[in-house]
Amino acid sequence: MRPKIYLFGDSITEESFSDGGWGSSLANHFSRTGDVVLRGYSGYNTRWALKVKEKVFPPPLPPDGGAGGDLLAVTVFFGANDACLPDRCSGFQHVPLEEYKHNLKAIVAFLKKQWPCTRIILITPPPIDEAGRLLHPYVENPSDQPERTNEAAGKYSKECLAAAAECDVSSIDLWTKMQQFPGWRNTYLRDGLHLTPDGNKVVFEEVIGRLKELGISLETLLADLPLLAEIDPNDPLKSFEN
Amino acid sequence: MRPKIYLFGDSITEESFSDGGWGSSLANHFSRTGDVVLRGYSGYNTRWALKVKEKVFPPPLPPDGGAGGDLLAVTVFFGANDACLPDRCSGFQHVPLEEYKHNLKAIVAFLKKQWPCTRIILITPPPIDEAGRLLHPYVENPSDQPERTNEAAGKYSKECLAAAAECDVSSIDLWTKMQQFPGWRNTYLRDGLHLTPDGNKVVFEEVIGRLKELGISLETLLADLPLLAEIDPNDPLKSFEN
Repeated sequence: MRPKIYLFGDSITEESFSDGGWGSSLANHFSRTGDVVLRGYSGYNTRWALKVKEKVFPPPLPPDGGAGGDLLAVTVFFGANDACLPDRCSGFQHVPLEEYKHNLKAIVAFLKKQWPCTRIILITPPPIDEAGRLLHPYVENPSDQPERTNEAAGKYSKECLAAAAECDVSSIDLWTKMQQFPGWRNTYLRDGLHLTPDGNKVVFEEVIGRLKELGISLETLLADLPLLAEIDPNDPLKSFEN
Repeated sequence: MRPKIYLFGDSITEESFSDGGWGSSLANHFSRTGDVVLRGYSGYNTRWALKVKEKVFPPPLPPDGGAGGDLLAVTVFFGANDACLPDRCSGFQHVPLEEYKHNLKAIVAFLKKQWPCTRIILITPPPIDEAGRLLHPYVENPSDQPERTNEAAGKYSKECLAAAAECDVSSIDLWTKMQQFPGWRNTYLRDGLHLTPDGNKVVFEEVIGRLKELGISLETLLADLPLLAEIDPNDPLKSFEN
């Protein structure tokens, strides 16, 4: 069975298979070598994610290998909802900063216990364009203040990176990376939070890069069946003898 | 575990997770309810597909349900390579018409034996734009004749539909459907064979429609975890108690 890469996160993961999405780009990249499994849950924060983790992931492999396939890697991409300000219109999604870090570490501990060899990548929330958030409210927002701020997203990003470091797993500092590009607000963000196709490309490139550092790439993963270029036109069935 | 929809086919399946691809559109459509599993093999014909089917699909579920998840549906999308003309530059991919039909029926029989309840959809090859094929050769083609013709693709399409009828499974007549649109050659095909984003939309819509006829839709599939709209903002954790 093909190894699997799970994408666990909120709406930025759930919609990652839309046109030009980072999830479908990953699936396309590994089209002959690995299965990319979508586990994105719109609106979820780490508190809710922690509650559902046993339903999100398959049971661990039995000792004989079993039918579940190997869990090669997992991206854990939460924080955009945890960072909603508690006193604004999406306050019910807010999770305090310290609890966010604790929850991320608990998710990592769960994954490591179930699959000791899986590679884990924590992704920070993206930066927030507050003007964009006011223009595209998700719930009624009678105030003139956005439910998310870039400053708050930055604090959660730092805790995400700290959690990754303390757990000795990989991370992507998306909050910083995106802001290095001057036009990030409109080039990378569609509504002040969710990603444009260009923003999706950033996530895809970062994930591919991190996976490669962790030994997961087209160079290291084997196709499970012969590629066309390997098939002898004069004796095609030879490739299928084993 | 989420039910799975397998996409089994040649390069038109393998590249179905590229931007705007019909596979990623399916995965996006079922993002909270089902896993779309990519099993596309560029260049493969039904003869080769038949050789590898046991490696393509997971072993059948053990009686207790097991960890593999339910195989809800399978698309079987071959014929574009079988229909290569035997005496032209891609002749090594050619499979005679009668054998093509026999192979499709053998693939269906295998799937039905392993997963008696799985829904099977056979998809005919798309029409061929011969001018496009001459402009975009895949292998050296010193002749001025395309390796595939629309007439041949049409014959294989008819056999595909006949195989589906004889096996009592669903089918999509892509060859006919696409040619109902006057500009099909350039609107739906990128190189005379592979699909443009518009061509991918046709396949996506046809597959979604056929799945719905078979009882598989967003109305019938349940999300495995609470949707944001179902979560009470005043008591979010209530949704996660069970």
